[in-house]
Amino acid sequence: MKVKILGCYAATPRTITNPTSQVLEIKNHMFLIDCGEGTQVQLRKHKIKFSRINHIFISHLHGDHFYGLIGLISTFMLLNRVNDLHVYGPKGIKELILLQLRASGSYTGYNLYFHELTAKESETIYEDEKVIVKTIPLQHRIYTNGFLFQEKNQQRKLNIEAVERHNIETCYFQKIKYGGDITLEDGTVVSNAELTFDPEPEKTYAFCSDTVYNENIIPLIEGVDVLYHETTFLDSEEHLAEKTMHTTAKQAATIALKANVKKLLMGHYSTRYASIEHFKTEGQTIFPNILLADDGKEFNF
Amino acid sequence: MKVKILGCYAATPRTITNPTSQVLEIKNHMFLIDCGEGTQVQLRKHKIKFSRINHIFISHLHGDHFYGLIGLISTFMLLNRVNDLHVYGPKGIKELILLQLRASGSYTGYNLYFHELTAKESETIYEDEKVIVKTIPLQHRIYTNGFLFQEKNQQRKLNIEAVERHNIETCYFQKIKYGGDITLEDGTVVSNAELTFDPEPEKTYAFCSDTVYNENIIPLIEGVDVLYHETTFLDSEEHLAEKTMHTTAKQAATIALKANVKKLLMGHYSTRYASIEHFKTEGQTIFPNILLADDGKEFNF
Repeated sequence: MKVKILGCYAATPRTITNPTSQVLEIKNHMFLIDCGEGTQVQLRKHKIKFSRINHIFISHLHGDHFYGLIGLISTFMLLNRVNDLHVYGPKGIKELILLQLRASGSYTGYNLYFHELTAKESETIYEDEKVIVKTIPLQHRIYTNGFLFQEKNQQRKLNIEAVERHNIETCYFQKIKYGGDITLEDGTVVSNAELTFDPEPEKTYAFCSDTVYNENIIPLIEGVDVLYHETTFLDSEEHLAEKTMHTTAKQAATIALKANVKKLLMGHYSTRYASIEHFKTEGQTIFPNILLADDGKEFNF
Repeated sequence: MKVKILGCYAATPRTITNPTSQVLEIKNHMFLIDCGEGTQVQLRKHKIKFSRINHIFISHLHGDHFYGLIGLISTFMLLNRVNDLHVYGPKGIKELILLQLRASGSYTGYNLYFHELTAKESETIYEDEKVIVKTIPLQHRIYTNGFLFQEKNQQRKLNIEAVERHNIETCYFQKIKYGGDITLEDGTVVSNAELTFDPEPEKTYAFCSDTVYNENIIPLIEGVDVLYHETTFLDSEEHLAEKTMHTTAKQAATIALKANVKKLLMGHYSTRYASIEHFKTEGQTIFPNILLADDGKEFNF
């Protein structure tokens, strides 16, 4: 599981900071999460193949999470994309994009599917045999969702030595990988425990931006491997966090602690601060395992 | 009169090229012409004060001329702008912008005025005591206007030596600047020609992008000081120019020649070419006085 940060600063794009966008590489998927202005240029800069992006998740319709989407969709069109593109985001996103395409007399040569979200409870919005994606309802000034990406129950790993010792034919391998016991021709039952090893644990990534401090999300992100949680402000600006419905570094660390997550990845920094190191310092007074996102940084988990 | 090129490449923003946007500084105005994605970052990069931009002219609603507008308007809002902002562009632009502001639960604290254009003939869209702006109807795949910026008739320059010699009081200076003769107390008439010098000639700047080769614009741009005319393609891609309703370097040079303009400023280059120098070389086989726009370049006229 790999996360590439394309942008992780709040409010407005600047010469050296980019608004929110990140690419989550998980089980051969490249999921694009949020798409602030300039995201397509960031994708080019970091040499991420446009054709590998088939699913885009938009947390909410504030510009710093969304204004780059129409440009990316248009560029896909100009580059003669053929793959389907799925966009998941708040109700209204379809009209906003289609109206702009219509105004420019354009239509996409590829299929563009919108999955508009309105639910206030967590729901599954994408699922295949390897990954499941659920929403994490957040509390912000407008309707906002975080997203929980979970690798799905994996098949158990064959113990080749044991399988060969019992002369088990390959046609039974799928059954074994899915946890089945095997009855040999002489009637002996060989337990699955003898024939397999445990699979690698499934990894989980939770993206939570933008949101006020909100303990309601804790059951949804309990024990995740990585929690990306916005930290727009430091403690000294807690009043602003409350007013603008954002989170401080300490508040995000408190959520990480209470949800017993393995790692906290901070981001969505206000550009008022000279250094982002303070976010880590303040957060670590509460929760030790903190990583700082920064534009262009890549994290392997 | 000064033109700062923020971006002058066609189609999609890239790491080293930007879509169309330029700032025309004329008679103390800073007019922003077109606003492709990333324009606000280009403005910051070139240290152009946001507060000096009060008029934005949008040629047409293709993304590479327009997708940066919503971000710029939002950033003005976040920076607590107070000055009025006037946007001139094709009908539909108001709905597109307001729908996006509404979706983000935002409203501008400053007055935002849209001047929607529908006319197929040239019309005056802005005028004050110093400058007049007219549309130049262009032919492209969707409704498109170029813009003609003209300095207005200036006052004549006082010949201080002559004015003092005749002991003319300052209360008559305005009359003299506006071309009036003066009758002295002894009845002698002093002609304006004796009291003044000719003013600097009024400068004119014509912006024509995007358009197919179109001789109908010639009467509108006759003799301008600077014609910015799109040159998306070289001669070898003339078939593409026709198909996509763009212009080649030679075609733009032909328009410049026939309209008897003083200088031709080329831009809106397709990114398929390794060097933009070829545009100049091809154009100069027809019209000599050619300048090449490039991102970040500034021209003083």
